[in-house]
Amino acid sequence: MCQVFIKHTSASLTINENADATVRKDFESHVNVMVPEDAPYYLHTYEGPDDMPAHIKASLLGASIQVPITNGKLNLGIWQGIYLCEHRNHASGRNLVITVFGQ
Amino acid sequence: MCQVFIKHTSASLTINENADATVRKDFESHVNVMVPEDAPYYLHTYEGPDDMPAHIKASLLGASIQVPITNGKLNLGIWQGIYLCEHRNHASGRNLVITVFGQ
Amino acid sequence: MCQVFIKHTSASLTINENADATVRKDFESHVNVMVPEDAPYYLHTYEGPDDMPAHIKASLLGASIQVPITNGKLNLGIWQGIYLCEHRNHASGRNLVITVFGQ
Repeated sequence: MCQVFIKHTSASLTINENADATVRKDFESHVNVMVPEDAPYYLHTYEGPDDMPAHIKASLLGASIQVPITNGKLNLGIWQGIYLCEHRNHASGRNLVITVFGQ
Repeated sequence: MCQVFIKHTSASLTINENADATVRKDFESHVNVMVPEDAPYYLHTYEGPDDMPAHIKASLLGASIQVPITNGKLNLGIWQGIYLCEHRNHASGRNLVITVFGQ
Repeated sequence: MCQVFIKHTSASLTINENADATVRKDFESHVNVMVPEDAPYYLHTYEGPDDMPAHIKASLLGASIQVPITNGKLNLGIWQGIYLCEHRNHASGRNLVITVFGQ
């Protein structure tokens, strides 16, 4: 098993289609609609309008992915890839912890 | 620990209430509202209106579930069951990888 | 690795910002907008208007979190904490299964 864990609350990890770049574009477009900036009830706005939406998106998508390893390789489907989703407009790098375990 | 992993980007796995079939119906109804077909900004529409929504739903729900094993059994809550969520209208079977590990 | 698993379908676990209480408030406000009570298509309403939304929220956020352990400690980011998200208005306690594994 391989786990990738992101040590941040405004970025996330998910698995999705890794062939066509329009999937990533549409993914971001829709997540921005589901979790808009400037919702009138946001109180946590210290760092700008992308601050609170980034936290919400991070939890909807999750801080880790777990992928089985079979015969020494990540056993992903043919179209699957790992997305690091950056939810802030100006972030300066992200830290991951990658753990591989089992026999 | 038991992991179930789905090798697809338009179907997902989640854990939810396994007693009343209306939960599954309402679940699908609401996910279809949260992630509608025919959003004007979708670019990835090659395979029809259910293509891009399926990708987004897959990431919101996730590609794997991890369930602890206690005394040789999945330690699920009394109401919990594992859902395989099919997000395409016409899919032809799905591949899972099930990994059981630990002592 | 440490897994925390919640044995319920109307509460969830996620990782998010653990410093400013307004994040938790805004998080709840927005999740309540994304998954409202009294949607006209809900059939599963036996236990009141917070019943079905709680199930949907539980799957969007997830029933478990997995955190790597490094040098004997949870390797969380400096701002990360574990949220137990209660999605019912009147719940009477929740059961968790915590599993620590690896060397």
